[in-house]
Amino acid sequence: MSADVVSLLGQIREVGRDPRGPGYQRPGFSPIERELREWFEAEAAARGLDVEVDANGITWAWATQPGPNAVVTGSHLDSVPGGGQFDGPLGVASALDALDRLRADGRLERAARPLALAVFPEEEGSRFGVACLGSRLISGAIAPERALGLADAEGDTFAEVAAAYGLDPHRMGPDPERLAGIGSFIELHVEQGVGLIETGQPVALGASIIGHGRWRLRFTGQGNHAGTTPMAHRADPVAAGSAVIGEIPRLAAGFDRAVATVGRTSIHPGGTNVIASAMDCWLDIRHADDAVVAQVLQAIVDRARDIAGAAGVGFGASRESYSPTTVFDAELTDRMAAQLPQAPRLPTGAGHDAGILAAHVPSAMLFVRNPTGVSHAPEEACEDADARAGAAALADVLAAELGA
Amino acid sequence: MSADVVSLLGQIREVGRDPRGPGYQRPGFSPIERELREWFEAEAAARGLDVEVDANGITWAWATQPGPNAVVTGSHLDSVPGGGQFDGPLGVASALDALDRLRADGRLERAARPLALAVFPEEEGSRFGVACLGSRLISGAIAPERALGLADAEGDTFAEVAAAYGLDPHRMGPDPERLAGIGSFIELHVEQGVGLIETGQPVALGASIIGHGRWRLRFTGQGNHAGTTPMAHRADPVAAGSAVIGEIPRLAAGFDRAVATVGRTSIHPGGTNVIASAMDCWLDIRHADDAVVAQVLQAIVDRARDIAGAAGVGFGASRESYSPTTVFDAELTDRMAAQLPQAPRLPTGAGHDAGILAAHVPSAMLFVRNPTGVSHAPEEACEDADARAGAAALADVLAAELGA
Repeated sequence: MSADVVSLLGQIREVGRDPRGPGYQRPGFSPIERELREWFEAEAAARGLDVEVDANGITWAWATQPGPNAVVTGSHLDSVPGGGQFDGPLGVASALDALDRLRADGRLERAARPLALAVFPEEEGSRFGVACLGSRLISGAIAPERALGLADAEGDTFAEVAAAYGLDPHRMGPDPERLAGIGSFIELHVEQGVGLIETGQPVALGASIIGHGRWRLRFTGQGNHAGTTPMAHRADPVAAGSAVIGEIPRLAAGFDRAVATVGRTSIHPGGTNVIASAMDCWLDIRHADDAVVAQVLQAIVDRARDIAGAAGVGFGASRESYSPTTVFDAELTDRMAAQLPQAPRLPTGAGHDAGILAAHVPSAMLFVRNPTGVSHAPEEACEDADARAGAAALADVLAAELGA
Repeated sequence: MSADVVSLLGQIREVGRDPRGPGYQRPGFSPIERELREWFEAEAAARGLDVEVDANGITWAWATQPGPNAVVTGSHLDSVPGGGQFDGPLGVASALDALDRLRADGRLERAARPLALAVFPEEEGSRFGVACLGSRLISGAIAPERALGLADAEGDTFAEVAAAYGLDPHRMGPDPERLAGIGSFIELHVEQGVGLIETGQPVALGASIIGHGRWRLRFTGQGNHAGTTPMAHRADPVAAGSAVIGEIPRLAAGFDRAVATVGRTSIHPGGTNVIASAMDCWLDIRHADDAVVAQVLQAIVDRARDIAGAAGVGFGASRESYSPTTVFDAELTDRMAAQLPQAPRLPTGAGHDAGILAAHVPSAMLFVRNPTGVSHAPEEACEDADARAGAAALADVLAAELGA
């Protein structure tokens, strides 16, 4: 194969493009994600790899005979709504490119350990609300009963969607045997910030994933007619919930380096001339110190209680997911640093499958420079030379792990 | 026919019930609205009425030979999302009941003027954003080119939906000849406030419809990753737009009897872990004095400019519709008052087809008591005895108009 990471990404550039604007719509377990997975399977098959999709929808492509203490690399192919081109696919295409490099210069032949490429489904959690769904299922970080009951915006449950996708919901869940066979997991990803711009390097080592929680805030009031209900007689959940969202930047700014975001809401019933009866807001909070995440949440919940109470509106908060701060495997990262002495070590505020697997498997990450620093948006970028440098770096750290 | 207004409403009680909760989903030009229209057509046909659907989708059922100076009564069958059972259908069912009463006691035989029943489509404007779409089209209050270009939440244009519904988009538009044939238009409607509760009466005369405008507020920022973008580097349209919505109750309360509402928003792209790039908010403002509507809008727009500017977010406002305060026909209303000496005269903050037609045709309204005072919500109510009193009152004012 001669396709490098840049031309591989070019092959899927039109798949899942958002018809309404720039960016991509690649929801988990959708026909688009399936098309991307089938592209990966075809690329793997063209390289003679054995491909299997496991019970949790994770795709494994073996570059050697399967076996214990395997070295695994990969990422995901789904996107957030309106996402960019590189978040996920850069790691998958770089895995294929790195394999080609290891073969081209004979290093794969000298491998002392097995090598596999992996693609994880629904990493973003944009469809069912829980990020890294595939890696959470295989590792037991989410109970299969809970995952199967999650519903997407259409009201379809994950159980229904997974079955239609060709998976058996009854077989989903922890697979400790498969996890135990992984000796090292390395995920390459486009950087989602400006750390590499600031350090002038194309590639970084992941240091940690900062703590990350998602909560649903629910405001409930009295639905009524927008034209006939005096302002003083209202219990308007949209007015109250919006006031809370409007204060989040101020509340979060009170905690150094904390971030808190509402990027999604749902108003019921959602009519122009209707005072709503309920509003849900999805709140995302992250900080390197889990205690600070809890403090930011408390500040927002306290303020929401006050605002809702004054407006005669009901309020409740429920946690949808929480991932404490994850420090990547020190020994693996040190070995990678020996191969990449120029690479800085950077923490990230973004979640990744490598962060979920890290609780069970020695895991590490490589980040590739993003000249805009923007991610989860169409402006996300990666220059060709940096993408190639990333694939070469991945090949080098894989070769070192393989003992080649 | 022996079915009275209560049993007529019972016939359609299950049509368009919201499967997700209490209330109704009866969008304009939907299969549900068609099913309701066909129910009306069947009831009219069973009474021997000639039924026609005109070029604008308005259904006319003639109880006599068609002719000039006709007396017309009717309402609509669509609902807001999550709406109640009576808003619209009470007026349609009462028209059928009143006809039965006029026939049963021989008054229809003595009619000196023609009588028709009418059903107007998309009165709520919940689907295409413009309320009273049928009456606006027939009266020229909206240009057909503009109406046909309106799109629903699925992105389907009114031209496409109307054609699929069986209407010819090229034939839509003003029909002055048909309007000129109407001598009196009387719409009966459930009250959408507490005026009748306070006066202890079952039926009121409509005095006026207060001025009502709808605007779209658009906030635009920089989409980005919710986990990796520091609070200080954000241009978050959801935070800015929500802060504005949160201040609307305070801003509107500064103007006596003004109401201002946001009951619907749209966030792009709308991901939990994504700082959005854009947020649209639909703003509904009403007041009996059109100048006050303009002042409330200005207060909200000024505040939105300040908040958006401070947040580095773009802001713009565009008007979607405006209906100035409408006073119903004084002579017609006085004649009705002679029949209903106990009925108070009440203004309303809700828009109605009678308010649109009033610019061209002598128009008036009857309101029937709503024991909750709630409307556009499942709690909207009407007691059976009040519904029957409303139908009897409608029969009496129709008879007086008909000279029977």
